[in-house]
Amino acid sequence: MKHRTLRIALDGMGSDDYPYPELHGALTAASEFGYEILITGDKALLAPALKEINSTSNSKISIIHAPEKIESDESPAFSSRKKTQNSIAAGMRLVKDGEADAFVSAGNTGAILANGLITLRRIPYTRRPAIAVLIPVPQGYFILLDVGANSDCKADFLHQFAIMGSLYAHKVLGIRQPKVGLLSNGEEENKGNELTKEAHALIKNDQNINFIGNVEGKEMFAGKADVVITDGFTGNVSLKITESVAKMVATLVKDAIKSNIISLIGGILVRKSIENTAHTLDPNEHGGAPLLGLNGIVVVGHGRSNSRAIRSAIKVAGKAVKNELLGELETALEQQTKSYS
Amino acid sequence: MKHRTLRIALDGMGSDDYPYPELHGALTAASEFGYEILITGDKALLAPALKEINSTSNSKISIIHAPEKIESDESPAFSSRKKTQNSIAAGMRLVKDGEADAFVSAGNTGAILANGLITLRRIPYTRRPAIAVLIPVPQGYFILLDVGANSDCKADFLHQFAIMGSLYAHKVLGIRQPKVGLLSNGEEENKGNELTKEAHALIKNDQNINFIGNVEGKEMFAGKADVVITDGFTGNVSLKITESVAKMVATLVKDAIKSNIISLIGGILVRKSIENTAHTLDPNEHGGAPLLGLNGIVVVGHGRSNSRAIRSAIKVAGKAVKNELLGELETALEQQTKSYS
Repeated sequence: MKHRTLRIALDGMGSDDYPYPELHGALTAASEFGYEILITGDKALLAPALKEINSTSNSKISIIHAPEKIESDESPAFSSRKKTQNSIAAGMRLVKDGEADAFVSAGNTGAILANGLITLRRIPYTRRPAIAVLIPVPQGYFILLDVGANSDCKADFLHQFAIMGSLYAHKVLGIRQPKVGLLSNGEEENKGNELTKEAHALIKNDQNINFIGNVEGKEMFAGKADVVITDGFTGNVSLKITESVAKMVATLVKDAIKSNIISLIGGILVRKSIENTAHTLDPNEHGGAPLLGLNGIVVVGHGRSNSRAIRSAIKVAGKAVKNELLGELETALEQQTKSYS
Repeated sequence: MKHRTLRIALDGMGSDDYPYPELHGALTAASEFGYEILITGDKALLAPALKEINSTSNSKISIIHAPEKIESDESPAFSSRKKTQNSIAAGMRLVKDGEADAFVSAGNTGAILANGLITLRRIPYTRRPAIAVLIPVPQGYFILLDVGANSDCKADFLHQFAIMGSLYAHKVLGIRQPKVGLLSNGEEENKGNELTKEAHALIKNDQNINFIGNVEGKEMFAGKADVVITDGFTGNVSLKITESVAKMVATLVKDAIKSNIISLIGGILVRKSIENTAHTLDPNEHGGAPLLGLNGIVVVGHGRSNSRAIRSAIKVAGKAVKNELLGELETALEQQTKSYS
């Protein structure tokens, strides 16, 4: 580790409601975990806002001026090259130069990936970086990757995703021998498309992976796997369907309750219990999506992140640094690459 | 049309609870729509069961003896060739020989497809048949295809799925100029994998399709498209995730309500409203999944079909026959095939 005190770079202009979720999250993380937080972004905006919520100066928080912001609807590749002074690029440079141990942003995922590839590049032996998300289920959560970095994958990419997801689950989430499943259209080994059938054979042969075989929606949402592997197209479609269906059913229940006076009264009585349940499925509690395969620790928070989500993402990033995730990934990916030849 | 009275072949041993859903559904359909129903299956089982629920003989219902049943966990290809006297094959033969106008089964979808390909074959100019399902949303429903017939697709298959889904929506569901979307990992035209980008261009150029471009979970479940096109792998994964998440959220709400005495009382008051809502999302109301591209009308009911679902599937099959879906499909697919060369 480069510093005695962990230093986390944080994008000050990432979330939908920036900068307050970031600033509150940073202050909490600094006092709770003792980390130094380097907030990147427009100083003219961040400095007064920080002063407003924390009038006494805090030696653990500093602002790194980076005036440009990549908007959520901008083309990641284009804007990342055009806006060289953007708050994401600034964070990546801090990690690259050893000024920070990790970078956290709740900004445009595509832009974070693009800036990461430009500045940090890939871990040696890594075919493609992947975006991993934690999906909450009643039993806890599972990690799904890739959810969008690679629309077209080869079987060895999926094998690497299995290695990266498994190591992340072990080193950062503390799951011993994480159960790894391959998302497919049937549980049987012979089910799948050409890509998943080939990936199935590769992952099955890897003695370092606790592979449970193909999984479908039923197994995923029953929490049967800790890590679920898929290509970035299927993963992204799956993630968005999951969010949409959950929201649709919740809205239907809410509307049904409001539909007449008797159920409205009932609704008042059930509200607290349902809110408690909703809390266990709240992505803000689960601390961000790691970009795995970049040569630096990068954690992405949801665009709708609140300060609690920012704090969780910082916590996760710190844990990845302390448990030396990068070195572990490099060793494992080198071993896998050499096993192929 | 070959007969004055429509004749529908019905698999008497398809649903999980066969034969009663089939027999009740057949009796309802016969009296409600005036169709003749030819029920295929083991006569030793079906005849006494029919007599039990309908003691007076009914000239509109007949039983076609086919003693073998393909179980839901059997390999479709293998069992379809081995069990030549299975109840699905018998239904397909009735259609092939002109003894029936359409076939309805709530059995193993893979086996229905395999038997259909063996006996009915494809409509001329059809690259691949597709399984289409109706997914209920608060605004009504949308058709998703392919949900499992083809794990690996080419762009022109997807173009044909768009043509078939659109014609089905128009001719059978009565939707004028059905809005067709392509399932992708982003709404923008440049989003997608290689397959969907190529398919996007083909579908966009087809003047007979009301193409609304790429759709994601959000648009699908807001009812923005009448027909959503995807390859059989992504479609199958998407369908199963949809079912699993809806079930998970519903169970969480139910468990939350049961978690304490106050919300339990509230639960009694909200139950009726929630049940009404659940009813609108009940797949039994929406009448089965057509296999599009086979050279005969084949409609698949859900394995958990009740008699109402069987009746709905028969109704849909009858409508497809009356509106001459097969001929329309052949004309459209011929036109599309010739437009390529």
